[in-house]
Amino acid sequence: MSLKLTILGCHSATPRVNAHPTSQFLEIKNHNFLIDCGEGTQVQLRKHSIKFSKIKHIFISHLHGDHFFGLIGLISTFRLLNRETELHIYAPKGLKEIITLQLKLSNSWTSYPLYFHELTSLKSKLIFEDSKVEVHTIPLNHRIYTNGFLFKEKLGERKLNMTAINKYPEIQICDYQNLKIGRDYTLLNGNIIKNEVLTLAPSKPKSYAFCSDTSYFPEILPIVKNVNCLYHETTFLKDKEELAETTKHSTAEQAASIAKQAHVEQLMIGHFSSRYKDKTNFLQESKAIFPNTILAEEGKTFEIT
Amino acid sequence: MSLKLTILGCHSATPRVNAHPTSQFLEIKNHNFLIDCGEGTQVQLRKHSIKFSKIKHIFISHLHGDHFFGLIGLISTFRLLNRETELHIYAPKGLKEIITLQLKLSNSWTSYPLYFHELTSLKSKLIFEDSKVEVHTIPLNHRIYTNGFLFKEKLGERKLNMTAINKYPEIQICDYQNLKIGRDYTLLNGNIIKNEVLTLAPSKPKSYAFCSDTSYFPEILPIVKNVNCLYHETTFLKDKEELAETTKHSTAEQAASIAKQAHVEQLMIGHFSSRYKDKTNFLQESKAIFPNTILAEEGKTFEIT
Repeated sequence: MSLKLTILGCHSATPRVNAHPTSQFLEIKNHNFLIDCGEGTQVQLRKHSIKFSKIKHIFISHLHGDHFFGLIGLISTFRLLNRETELHIYAPKGLKEIITLQLKLSNSWTSYPLYFHELTSLKSKLIFEDSKVEVHTIPLNHRIYTNGFLFKEKLGERKLNMTAINKYPEIQICDYQNLKIGRDYTLLNGNIIKNEVLTLAPSKPKSYAFCSDTSYFPEILPIVKNVNCLYHETTFLKDKEELAETTKHSTAEQAASIAKQAHVEQLMIGHFSSRYKDKTNFLQESKAIFPNTILAEEGKTFEIT
Repeated sequence: MSLKLTILGCHSATPRVNAHPTSQFLEIKNHNFLIDCGEGTQVQLRKHSIKFSKIKHIFISHLHGDHFFGLIGLISTFRLLNRETELHIYAPKGLKEIITLQLKLSNSWTSYPLYFHELTSLKSKLIFEDSKVEVHTIPLNHRIYTNGFLFKEKLGERKLNMTAINKYPEIQICDYQNLKIGRDYTLLNGNIIKNEVLTLAPSKPKSYAFCSDTSYFPEILPIVKNVNCLYHETTFLKDKEELAETTKHSTAEQAASIAKQAHVEQLMIGHFSSRYKDKTNFLQESKAIFPNTILAEEGKTFEIT
């Protein structure tokens, strides 16, 4: 299966009637990750029929309101829905204090285990790993401590080549797992059949990098190199490059330049300033440098192949 | 002018696509008060074309999320809109810590003066007063420290009776203010004309009481007695009276009983649990005891006459 990304919000600063702050829902292997959680994210989840109970890991890039003000509401709603499964939150140091203070004062402790993984490192770190997926931080350059996140599938098992296998009737179903993990097969007559004769290479692992908010920051290139899809913030167009520099945001041209240098397959841009009504200018500016650019659009699901 | 009340949200617990948590916008004399501020309130304000800059005083009943999770976002948006005028927040002790912690960690102090008036008293207190309006707390009975608010116009100046005044050509425009504040008029010949001959009684001051969240709590009767409009929470119908008692909420019947005993003119009910799809049952249950009941409805403006 491809990675699936649903955009819940892709605008900067303040929520408006049809412009929601940053939040994304990523389906990768057996995981459902929520990335950032601006005000109103829980309503966006409902609107797009995403089951709350699916979410077990939430990644927060930084402590500006348009990226986390919706989190306390979501945590509270989980409690009201009688959630029992644990919830893990990966976020800059400080968020735990913000959330627990509110839970304490409202006398509403969660009924489920809530784990905070507080981030402080200025270097890229592996912050989540299981047999199929890993997540690394991507240190960014913003006005406050900020991380992007790199979501990577691990190399899977080899695939059975059934045409080849069927030539050897003595190979049984119970042998398949050994073949998948790369073992050769020894026939009863002692002949060894090389694994690559019986199996095919596994699918190439897919990867998604989320980079928001940040100024133009080529230091991220080694981390996001060759990803299938890079989401990079483009708060401004080139006409506001100076303002982008002051506020430590990026222009569409700068995001495209990062995508080009990192040889990513696809660039998705978002975090648009509300001053721009027409988003096609972002696309145009980016495509001039990196043609395979797409616009983040609220409520849309994208397959990352 | 009448009091004008706009309902921004009137549902309990979690925000949903078409069910917003508690928030109300009250126009009384020269003031624009925001009462409670659930998640998404700032979008509701935009949706109903209420100018953000009008709001100078915000009253928060208690620290359950559905009554204040939208406040930090609104405070931040005021900053992004370059607000300069002061903002006063009346809320239970603790809210200041919640807000300032978030402003500190996001390195986003407000550009405007932000004053917190922290409430701790278990008795009704006068918390705001100017020449035309006063606001008192209404201590309620909920799971955590909670206040309702009583908004009262002060008795205005007497009205000029121009038909009577015109009979005395020596009364000049510059005398009108003295008449309005109740002074008699002394003619040049020494005769005194009683004020009530020249003026009419001022309009009866109007009042609005907001009571959410609370269990059935007759202790509020002396405070809300005779108000023009009482908003009282009705999270449940009578079928869930036991649950109302456990969670310290009210049924429609209980709210109606309070309205009846307090001899209010009108009862508005809201804070509906999402388990009830059809709100007409709330109206029916309440009207059986207090006929002049109306339902709070999101986005609607009510005149309190």
